[in-house]
Amino acid sequence: MLERFKPKVEDVVRIDSESLRASVAAIFEKMGVPPETAADGADVLTMTDLRAVESHGVSNMMRVYVQQFRDGILNPTPDIKIVKEMPGTATLDADRGLGILVGRHGMNLAMQKAKEVGFGVVTMSRSGHLGAVGHFSMIAAQNDMIGMCITAGGTSVVPTFGGEGRLGANPISIAAPAKNEAPVLFDVATSAVAMNKIQLARRVGADLLPGWVADMEGTPQMQDTPPNDYGGFLGLTIGGTREQGSHKGYGFSLMVEVLGAMLSGSVPSMFDETPRESMFKNYFAAYNIEAFTDLDTFKANMDQMLGTLKNTKPAPGHDRVLYPGLTESEDERDRRANGIPLHKEVVEWFEGISEELSTPALVRA
Amino acid sequence: MLERFKPKVEDVVRIDSESLRASVAAIFEKMGVPPETAADGADVLTMTDLRAVESHGVSNMMRVYVQQFRDGILNPTPDIKIVKEMPGTATLDADRGLGILVGRHGMNLAMQKAKEVGFGVVTMSRSGHLGAVGHFSMIAAQNDMIGMCITAGGTSVVPTFGGEGRLGANPISIAAPAKNEAPVLFDVATSAVAMNKIQLARRVGADLLPGWVADMEGTPQMQDTPPNDYGGFLGLTIGGTREQGSHKGYGFSLMVEVLGAMLSGSVPSMFDETPRESMFKNYFAAYNIEAFTDLDTFKANMDQMLGTLKNTKPAPGHDRVLYPGLTESEDERDRRANGIPLHKEVVEWFEGISEELSTPALVRA
Repeated sequence: MLERFKPKVEDVVRIDSESLRASVAAIFEKMGVPPETAADGADVLTMTDLRAVESHGVSNMMRVYVQQFRDGILNPTPDIKIVKEMPGTATLDADRGLGILVGRHGMNLAMQKAKEVGFGVVTMSRSGHLGAVGHFSMIAAQNDMIGMCITAGGTSVVPTFGGEGRLGANPISIAAPAKNEAPVLFDVATSAVAMNKIQLARRVGADLLPGWVADMEGTPQMQDTPPNDYGGFLGLTIGGTREQGSHKGYGFSLMVEVLGAMLSGSVPSMFDETPRESMFKNYFAAYNIEAFTDLDTFKANMDQMLGTLKNTKPAPGHDRVLYPGLTESEDERDRRANGIPLHKEVVEWFEGISEELSTPALVRA
Repeated sequence: MLERFKPKVEDVVRIDSESLRASVAAIFEKMGVPPETAADGADVLTMTDLRAVESHGVSNMMRVYVQQFRDGILNPTPDIKIVKEMPGTATLDADRGLGILVGRHGMNLAMQKAKEVGFGVVTMSRSGHLGAVGHFSMIAAQNDMIGMCITAGGTSVVPTFGGEGRLGANPISIAAPAKNEAPVLFDVATSAVAMNKIQLARRVGADLLPGWVADMEGTPQMQDTPPNDYGGFLGLTIGGTREQGSHKGYGFSLMVEVLGAMLSGSVPSMFDETPRESMFKNYFAAYNIEAFTDLDTFKANMDQMLGTLKNTKPAPGHDRVLYPGLTESEDERDRRANGIPLHKEVVEWFEGISEELSTPALVRA
């Protein structure tokens, strides 16, 4: 994540990750979620913060989820149904379950099918927010498979040349295991900037960069723009302008809509009248590496590639070359040891809700 | 394609598409390719030009393929072997066959598996150039499936912050059918600009735009740059700079490397010592839509989405909103009726080779 999104040092409180996990799980249980599922959701959010994907960790999301449960639109005990199935595929109805709580079910089923026929793909309609989609791809990578996970929903992003929002942030993720190197973990919004990042920018007082958002008529804003008037922007796709490749971002966003929404039997997101809280259409895929090639050779090849990428001579003015998943792995090590840095406002919210619900308080690292 | 890449009107000759197809097929046959396969390759190239994807049609590619056959590195009669197989997957060795000639085999096998288990994915090593990967995705869409096709190979593109080339143009394509609207056909390089476009720009005398290429040390060129010194650039990934999202393009490029190269059992492209002519690692995937949901409903939903996208109110200064595949379909209709516009230099090359090989000459439209 760019430096500009990080909170100022004086605003940061380091929280022990196990205490965060316990606190989140307990809050979910108070919302009526069964203990095992609540623990699973706490794992998604805590891992997301351990990997330093603040935009999708507890800071932005926890209070939203709590509100959605309280509003009664999310179902704490969903009955996930198989709508259609073949040996390599399944279409599920998530029954208004929160995505971070039902996502593991989707990826587990995809992995089971991949064991049987080499590849498994599971689509899922009527889900709540899925959180950081990369988390579910990583479940596959941790099981020696390649994982992909995407989620469709929303209409805040304009198609190239468009003056009206038609697409969601529609993120795509892929994860693949290596032998000794940190696994590949690629997880990005197909919008120029994840919409959650605008919230983060507002919290930390950073400007939005040129090409990140459009005004309400669809014109890309090509100067630094303060995020104060959140809601007064339309999103742009990756690239920002046609010349810089926004048509490519648009195509990737549409790919998410086709694989997530259309292939789960849902209507296009732009016509989806499901309440926002349960409008997400998810896609989970698992590749059984051994179906294609020797697993050890695959992992050794991954090590060779990733090692070479990170040892690439940097361009002038840069310290090092990264690959997707590398800093996430480094951050995880640091944060497990030294705690997760949360903005003091977020810690205050946890203090309030813990007191209200009589759940375990956060512990400073 | 941006206007700047199109040849000047006075340099253009309109050629009848059937005559182009016949000429290309006859040239392939003279290279030792069996008639049915030669016709297939002619179909790939002619369709690519009909869809106005000039960078991957006959203009850039035909003379390259002829030279590669003459150099004896490509195999005109490859024995394509199944290296590994499960009900939903297969890994093939293309035996140095030209990609545009062996690609249909890969997609056909993927579609057959999709009929049986719901989804099929086929990887393929040791292939020659695959041409426009979208062509193979479209074969699936024409058979009421969703198709994906990608190809890995090359080292001309830098990772974000990198000063050395490590990745290829690594294109990704997806195609999906609709009912009455033109199908979605998305096909893009994960580099900021397809390397072939630099050749096109040189032919038509257009500048490269800011953020499209880096100098030989890896610094993105942020001004208009003449393409004269082709070979004097390193490629950038989609986005161009980190601030504009090059890390996202980098991740998509790496995704191609993982699914194409690694999953076909190949070494990473950056260590691939196979001769350039047969170094491509391909990936073909087909989703059987009926395995997931009702096909008619899917197509009706696609129509609703695509119709709404193209009728989106344009942003100020723009005439209309497109979707990937729309202009390709319009161009195809025009070019079938009025001929394919080729640069006069390309027509001259065809005249020379037709005379030399005694193959049918091109016919003006």
